Amino acid sequence: MAATLLDEIGELVTCRGDGPVGVAPLADAAVVVEDGMVAWIGPAAQAPPCDVRMPLAGRAVIPGFVDSHSHLVFAGDRAAEFAARMAGEAYDGGGIATTVAATRAASVDALRGLLATRVAELRAQGTTTIEIKSGYGLDIDTEARMLRLAAEVTTETTYLGGHVVPAEYARERAAYVKLVCGPMLAACAPHARWVDVFCEPGSAHAFDGDEARAILTAGMAAGLRPRVHGGQLAPGPGVRLAVELGAASVDHCTFLTAADVDALAGSTTVATLLPGVEFSTRSPYPDARRLLDAGVTVALATDCNPGTCFSSSMPLMIALAVREMGMTVAEALWAATRGGAAALERDDIGRIEVGARADLAVLDAPSHLHLAYRPGVPIARALDVEAQMGWRS
Amino acid sequence: MAATLLDEIGELVTCRGDGPVGVAPLADAAVVVEDGMVAWIGPAAQAPPCDVRMPLAGRAVIPGFVDSHSHLVFAGDRAAEFAARMAGEAYDGGGIATTVAATRAASVDALRGLLATRVAELRAQGTTTIEIKSGYGLDIDTEARMLRLAAEVTTETTYLGGHVVPAEYARERAAYVKLVCGPMLAACAPHARWVDVFCEPGSAHAFDGDEARAILTAGMAAGLRPRVHGGQLAPGPGVRLAVELGAASVDHCTFLTAADVDALAGSTTVATLLPGVEFSTRSPYPDARRLLDAGVTVALATDCNPGTCFSSSMPLMIALAVREMGMTVAEALWAATRGGAAALERDDIGRIEVGARADLAVLDAPSHLHLAYRPGVPIARALDVEAQMGWRS
Repeated sequence: MAATLLDEIGELVTCRGDGPVGVAPLADAAVVVEDGMVAWIGPAAQAPPCDVRMPLAGRAVIPGFVDSHSHLVFAGDRAAEFAARMAGEAYDGGGIATTVAATRAASVDALRGLLATRVAELRAQGTTTIEIKSGYGLDIDTEARMLRLAAEVTTETTYLGGHVVPAEYARERAAYVKLVCGPMLAACAPHARWVDVFCEPGSAHAFDGDEARAILTAGMAAGLRPRVHGGQLAPGPGVRLAVELGAASVDHCTFLTAADVDALAGSTTVATLLPGVEFSTRSPYPDARRLLDAGVTVALATDCNPGTCFSSSMPLMIALAVREMGMTVAEALWAATRGGAAALERDDIGRIEVGARADLAVLDAPSHLHLAYRPGVPIARALDVEAQMGWRS
Repeated sequence: MAATLLDEIGELVTCRGDGPVGVAPLADAAVVVEDGMVAWIGPAAQAPPCDVRMPLAGRAVIPGFVDSHSHLVFAGDRAAEFAARMAGEAYDGGGIATTVAATRAASVDALRGLLATRVAELRAQGTTTIEIKSGYGLDIDTEARMLRLAAEVTTETTYLGGHVVPAEYARERAAYVKLVCGPMLAACAPHARWVDVFCEPGSAHAFDGDEARAILTAGMAAGLRPRVHGGQLAPGPGVRLAVELGAASVDHCTFLTAADVDALAGSTTVATLLPGVEFSTRSPYPDARRLLDAGVTVALATDCNPGTCFSSSMPLMIALAVREMGMTVAEALWAATRGGAAALERDDIGRIEVGARADLAVLDAPSHLHLAYRPGVPIARALDVEAQMGWRS
């Protein structure tokens, strides 16, 4: 494939460094892309000869967003539940049953079509890597079907049979955990990279610490790497369990004890914050500043799902992190790219570096600051170098 | 021009009624558009024969957004000021001087190009009417130039010589007010429909009640209709002045006294809320519920400007109104369409009705609820019936 020169870049944000220091933008920089990889970065005046030139007309270039937490395979619509919640109803995870019923009933082709539309939508907003969980099947066939579909669009597939206890097992939770750890896992593991569990002891629907441990260790024994939903609705054992098991990430972290923060700070486990959930459930936001100041690696993701946050907009997550969570724009951008890559144990994405994948996003703006400065405005999109498609081309 | 039939509409929200009751969506409805006007609304099965058919594939159709408060003509970038404010610096209106300097220095062609880009951007997000203010010139020539440019893209042009006192008049405020009421007004009035003033006695930059009254009455004597910036930073005389003078709207209303609310409730003056400003300045949100419960007509607008809210996204304003201001989605949609029309004293826009303009927006979603259910996702766009351009076509 031809070498493509990206130039006239208004600001190149590589996220190469560790932490926000890596966000220091480069001016007058150019990038050469070849075979889907970054082949060269340097001053535009010194760029090597290329077959194709893609001038960016002063726009900023950033790593494509790495959205490390989504539930993108589902059928049904819960807009009415959202409106009711905004009118004052509480969220406890119970609404998931609605999506489970619709997803079980949907055909493979219908689910595939819905997924393709959502993937196109998030690419149009600058996301180039998406993690996708199962968890709306809660039976062997539907969980495996969700993961096979997810694997058609991403390598980051997560087995979440341990999402909630389905209604038909409400009085036999132990039997459901046994299913999740046994035959359901066996059917799903070939299609998954990760195992995840919704650990929230205060919820009648989710799993307590012992159940979560059983599900995660079974998944690990089947060759899956662990990640955890923890601390969404109240402090609980999820965060320390994630650290203990060496999970790549513990997600939500809305409610943390001091011991949780200490445990994260002494680990390689990423704290993945999902402020779209707090926005869409009118909950208090997680304290990102506390985590960053303690030295914890923070990622931002959407949690895109039909119940608690039906947003696929990583720019909105950045804007919320800046408005509500005490992050600088640079910290939020790093968390939405390099942080997401860390939460997926990937070093080939989330940064712009020679040898990394050329998963790039372009902003219709001169600076990454506009991601928070222009809330709600669709300024980011994935750069399609192969198709030579830049901004709105 | 040919009659066009819009059908396969997932949900038609007309905003025909007074208040949110007018939002009641119609199912299986169709709309006929002819000569830029709505010619027929009714059950799809009874639609008259048309020359052209535009099927919407189950998408919702709403009135195009009426963004009744913007400062869209300007040069320069204040992203760094935004980032500093997010890091803790206070806002008092002083940063406007940066935009004034850049706008005075910009050529007419440069300003026209920037404006055209912004108008395209807001249409791509579903806005079909935009009000545009001067106020970054603060000298005769630049104010008049801004209004001539604004008049090229909208009939809703607003003379805002009384935006702030420019630095060169800081020690002779009375002389500046005299300029605004005299020769500057004479140069601007031919290009403006409205006169506006930033009434905020607590700010060294804005105008107190007496100054505001002088500016508004001079504008009214020149044939302009009044509107007011009031109650943005603290309670002040702006709201009651607006009501007393019969202003179409008083905008911001972040800080209101009980007497302000009573005055609004007994008037035809619309309270235009601008939650993007509170989002981007990390300020408390206005209490929309209090206003609605008192019977005040509420509009939502962006205030799109380079200092306090560089967002052109009416869907984000709706999502913020629902998340932060106690409005239902229906109330927020009504405020963003019919409410904006009321704030501009227009009855030909902001609703879908036979005889009204066919200024329509289509949602890439089955229901208007998705405007708040899918925050940050660009689901709305203006429907271009003449070009037969629907969603992403």
